[in-house]
Amino acid sequence: MSTYRAFQVSGQGTGDWALVERELTAPLPGQVRLRVEACGICHSDALAFMGIIRPDASAPIVPGHEVVGVIDAVGAGVNTWNVGDRVGVGFLNGHCGECDFCRRGDFVSCASQPLTGTTVDGGYAEVAYARASGLVRIPDGMAATDAAPLLCAGLTVYQGLQRAGARPGALVAVLGIGGLGHLGVQYANKLGFRTVAVARGTEKAELAKRLGARHYIDSLAEDPAEALRALGGAAAVIATATDSRAMASLVTGLAPHGRLVVLGAGLDPMPVLPGDLLFAQRAIVGSLVGTPVENEDNLAFTRDQGIHSMNEVLPLSEAPKAFERMMSGKARFRVVLDAHA
Amino acid sequence: MSTYRAFQVSGQGTGDWALVERELTAPLPGQVRLRVEACGICHSDALAFMGIIRPDASAPIVPGHEVVGVIDAVGAGVNTWNVGDRVGVGFLNGHCGECDFCRRGDFVSCASQPLTGTTVDGGYAEVAYARASGLVRIPDGMAATDAAPLLCAGLTVYQGLQRAGARPGALVAVLGIGGLGHLGVQYANKLGFRTVAVARGTEKAELAKRLGARHYIDSLAEDPAEALRALGGAAAVIATATDSRAMASLVTGLAPHGRLVVLGAGLDPMPVLPGDLLFAQRAIVGSLVGTPVENEDNLAFTRDQGIHSMNEVLPLSEAPKAFERMMSGKARFRVVLDAHA
Amino acid sequence: MSTYRAFQVSGQGTGDWALVERELTAPLPGQVRLRVEACGICHSDALAFMGIIRPDASAPIVPGHEVVGVIDAVGAGVNTWNVGDRVGVGFLNGHCGECDFCRRGDFVSCASQPLTGTTVDGGYAEVAYARASGLVRIPDGMAATDAAPLLCAGLTVYQGLQRAGARPGALVAVLGIGGLGHLGVQYANKLGFRTVAVARGTEKAELAKRLGARHYIDSLAEDPAEALRALGGAAAVIATATDSRAMASLVTGLAPHGRLVVLGAGLDPMPVLPGDLLFAQRAIVGSLVGTPVENEDNLAFTRDQGIHSMNEVLPLSEAPKAFERMMSGKARFRVVLDAHA
Amino acid sequence: MSTYRAFQVSGQGTGDWALVERELTAPLPGQVRLRVEACGICHSDALAFMGIIRPDASAPIVPGHEVVGVIDAVGAGVNTWNVGDRVGVGFLNGHCGECDFCRRGDFVSCASQPLTGTTVDGGYAEVAYARASGLVRIPDGMAATDAAPLLCAGLTVYQGLQRAGARPGALVAVLGIGGLGHLGVQYANKLGFRTVAVARGTEKAELAKRLGARHYIDSLAEDPAEALRALGGAAAVIATATDSRAMASLVTGLAPHGRLVVLGAGLDPMPVLPGDLLFAQRAIVGSLVGTPVENEDNLAFTRDQGIHSMNEVLPLSEAPKAFERMMSGKARFRVVLDAHA
Repeated sequence: MSTYRAFQVSGQGTGDWALVERELTAPLPGQVRLRVEACGICHSDALAFMGIIRPDASAPIVPGHEVVGVIDAVGAGVNTWNVGDRVGVGFLNGHCGECDFCRRGDFVSCASQPLTGTTVDGGYAEVAYARASGLVRIPDGMAATDAAPLLCAGLTVYQGLQRAGARPGALVAVLGIGGLGHLGVQYANKLGFRTVAVARGTEKAELAKRLGARHYIDSLAEDPAEALRALGGAAAVIATATDSRAMASLVTGLAPHGRLVVLGAGLDPMPVLPGDLLFAQRAIVGSLVGTPVENEDNLAFTRDQGIHSMNEVLPLSEAPKAFERMMSGKARFRVVLDAHA
Repeated sequence: MSTYRAFQVSGQGTGDWALVERELTAPLPGQVRLRVEACGICHSDALAFMGIIRPDASAPIVPGHEVVGVIDAVGAGVNTWNVGDRVGVGFLNGHCGECDFCRRGDFVSCASQPLTGTTVDGGYAEVAYARASGLVRIPDGMAATDAAPLLCAGLTVYQGLQRAGARPGALVAVLGIGGLGHLGVQYANKLGFRTVAVARGTEKAELAKRLGARHYIDSLAEDPAEALRALGGAAAVIATATDSRAMASLVTGLAPHGRLVVLGAGLDPMPVLPGDLLFAQRAIVGSLVGTPVENEDNLAFTRDQGIHSMNEVLPLSEAPKAFERMMSGKARFRVVLDAHA
Repeated sequence: MSTYRAFQVSGQGTGDWALVERELTAPLPGQVRLRVEACGICHSDALAFMGIIRPDASAPIVPGHEVVGVIDAVGAGVNTWNVGDRVGVGFLNGHCGECDFCRRGDFVSCASQPLTGTTVDGGYAEVAYARASGLVRIPDGMAATDAAPLLCAGLTVYQGLQRAGARPGALVAVLGIGGLGHLGVQYANKLGFRTVAVARGTEKAELAKRLGARHYIDSLAEDPAEALRALGGAAAVIATATDSRAMASLVTGLAPHGRLVVLGAGLDPMPVLPGDLLFAQRAIVGSLVGTPVENEDNLAFTRDQGIHSMNEVLPLSEAPKAFERMMSGKARFRVVLDAHA
Repeated sequence: MSTYRAFQVSGQGTGDWALVERELTAPLPGQVRLRVEACGICHSDALAFMGIIRPDASAPIVPGHEVVGVIDAVGAGVNTWNVGDRVGVGFLNGHCGECDFCRRGDFVSCASQPLTGTTVDGGYAEVAYARASGLVRIPDGMAATDAAPLLCAGLTVYQGLQRAGARPGALVAVLGIGGLGHLGVQYANKLGFRTVAVARGTEKAELAKRLGARHYIDSLAEDPAEALRALGGAAAVIATATDSRAMASLVTGLAPHGRLVVLGAGLDPMPVLPGDLLFAQRAIVGSLVGTPVENEDNLAFTRDQGIHSMNEVLPLSEAPKAFERMMSGKARFRVVLDAHA
């Protein structure tokens, strides 16, 4: 095989899909090449279409940053990964190891890190490339389609919960029961928190309880901040929604010293009253995915605790349809491309 | 002496001062009574006039929550404080010790704590009362007028800097060079931070440098967030201003993992873009004064490091004029009432 | 009823039990009186016999610091506890609230805190007294004999695990599978740690696995430090044993930055090589029970996670026999006195 | 120039010095080569003579791990360092970036890191080599002989103080006023701690005060633990001595939650009573140097705060004599080789 198929978008809108044949190239020094097994579809894949992060938005790009595959070629200077290793690549395509952030061990903040499927080609393809420093070891026996959504969605909520710094048994709310939130409820429960699900309507109430939520708040039926206060106030709210006002409205549902953890990038400003932070010493903190080794921690925790992403799986060949399905907000709950189907 | 003089306000506006003669009463159980030596004037004394926190805003109240005095009577059940002890009382009038916050050692969040000069009478008077749990030991030899502004203004910035969690040598900005900010620059410097002062105009530039600022940013002349990024990005911004937009505008001046510490309660919402928190994992945190023992820590640190509040001192009898002076924004930098003048 | 029965020991040896009739007195200010329902027996009850902590070792004392009961009288100044409340009292009989440790919220270190059953009378009795600040609310529906051992044994291991500071999924070893250790394995597992049980012989291997241990190390059959290193090195070892050499021997089984948490007071010195701490930056930390509110956290966590102390229950009237059973080391695993049996 | 002079020792005793001429070689991939300007002499250079860490102790080695020099050649794959850069190399010769410790950002614990002057050649030479990941940028204008001792001695005490986790104003003791300790007193003072120097005899009392110690304890004249308790108990003791018993004897001088930070590798075990850790919840923690970027933090802090290592400077050609001087314990306080003298 000297070529591979990939879906690329032009970065100018939402309809410009192209299925292209690409030349197989050798991985650059420090990189590996993988045969893709599966790739999850994430809401931020839409960034690829918008082209707002790429230097040259007109250049086409392959979306997808929840990639699972098998290494089939290794570049120069890669010592700890081998052909045949089963690995994942998330949003961060590999840190440089040399900038000041990397020298502090803060690899997420690396000053020259490619973003998979956003600034470099991602996983809606038969083959993908990544820096070795971005690779995540997949546990034996974990199916590629099960692992894929954990690499970004799973990691994001798991690390967000770590960053919340709540004690075991504390009241922790998950705002939004979708792709991230349905995982967030499971993680929060298995991390020992008293978990509250907050969503619109009653449709997801039963599921939320089954996934481990102790309480369910329907934000259409009651003021969710007031409902949280009635439960004692949340030590943390994990905000997986992208509605900036909905996020901000939960600040007053936090107990003193509580933290609102922002995981989704709403485009509107959140209106935050200084006094709501000041008097109860609350905080709003952003949390962005995590390092590859934290991804491995998360995969191990997920497997050991019996946590599962609920996925709709489509063949790679149906990537455009799968993407549309995710964008519709109707998927239950993640959409994953299977490259072997 | 069976009566004492006090300035009270009616909580209905800004002009209703009354100098009244009050009966001296014995302290209640758990309380002490003090002869006031000095009382600092704080911008939040205006709360007393607005009456927005008090249950009965029509009842008159004595403002003032930077009180220094000598204990002259001790209530039942007070074991560790004695007549003759020189003490201070800040914004928190003493925690209950019994609520769940107190049982966690989080005395600032006490569910039933009176607020000095806001929900109970404060220090614009010859005599004041406080719960023993709210008392702060004044170091020997520290003048009352020197100590007073440290009890709220000093503590607020000192604790805000602690809450910032920056490492020694990190870049820390102080927004606003006024009553709080001129102390903030000194504390930041003596805590070993590379300190930046941010204020409007050039008037305070020289002073800020003298107080320990390594850099000065004139927010009228340049975009302060951009200026902070040019210095490498701030690990923390200590926001002593009350302009919500000015505070929010500094978020993008923070380095990854940086914290904006909110100390002042602007009345307008801060507009905060989720993406500005998310991608660089920044945080906005509220910080509210501190406990009495933290106040003692701060007094000791202040004395040991040669930090001074710059005060305009007026006699207690001129409290209304002193208050007006503070409200004018022209005082350099704190205004303090001397009860012995 | 104007008297109650209590077992007291003289503090001079191990055989001087006396069953005495005592006058019922009103609780002192700040105290409550309780009708005892159950009292756990703890190895450190032996301190009462040794009399090494009491000022007057010749004065008789009632042992027992895992007391569960119902409040039947409340002293002056107690506002938040009422007759009829079901409460527990652990090793710490209530902090003073006034010393500098208490003012820092460090109630465990309180400079004038009575120790239940050691410096003041404890729970081998029909009636016990405690400071209100030492009370622990018992969750509805939790049996007294189930709750009692959690108040010291449960709290000790739970807080020790908190103090270990390990991340979820980390390798955590519990040294000693006895009264504390059989709880430690359950807590470690439910806190999300990869749990290793370390004990002598193979007798407890199966039980340890059933309680949640992923691995079992027989310290008679292999070098346990080496075995831990083979598993990747422990992030924490929770040492529930009292053999100082056995504790010290596990230091080299810790991963870099790992912590040995010392919960038991062996009488011999632990021999610790500085280099074993230095090169891998390991730590040895002591952990002592916890505050009443931490005890409540623990009771809630224990109930929510389905954790159970395995107890041998005897009637209060058989306290001396029950104590002897505990001292024999043969009990499986805690011994509890039932005052209603 | 195609050769350079170096002092090597055989690793079999203390007298086998050889001044050899070596071939200049190109740096390996990932490495740089430097012209040495200065090299500090550290007590652990004695490890080179003992050969206890090297796989082949019979192979000769160049000691010295406080190296300052100018890069004169750069290996393949080094992107952020250039010929002409002025850099330092400490004990850690550069982490691999690929092992699991490195992937967690814990570069000090790197599983395959050479140790300068111990497992690979060090700085008692005209030329030295290091991995780029081990390089430390030297601030402009800092003399090589001033900077050298900071790279290990300075970093060690600075990081040890960070690891102590004490609050500003806390009581912090430095045990031993020698090469490390005379720096430790300065750092502790400038970090805002109430600093106590502990040493044998009165000889160094005056100097310790001048360097910033508030108190001096002569451990020959009084029990130092008792003296620390009389001052309120230490939040931290920074143990720079290598006498294991002297270190252990200070545990009981710690306040509750206090930490004994072990920086020196005494060869005898420290006898530590479990109860001394348990009841006051004290800890003993090892601390080992720090990362290159922490070394840069330290150099900046040292320069900004006016801290100085007191050095005896000898020409490189007198390395054996300089080493002997250091070993004599009489040097005041560090010994540094000047390669340009």
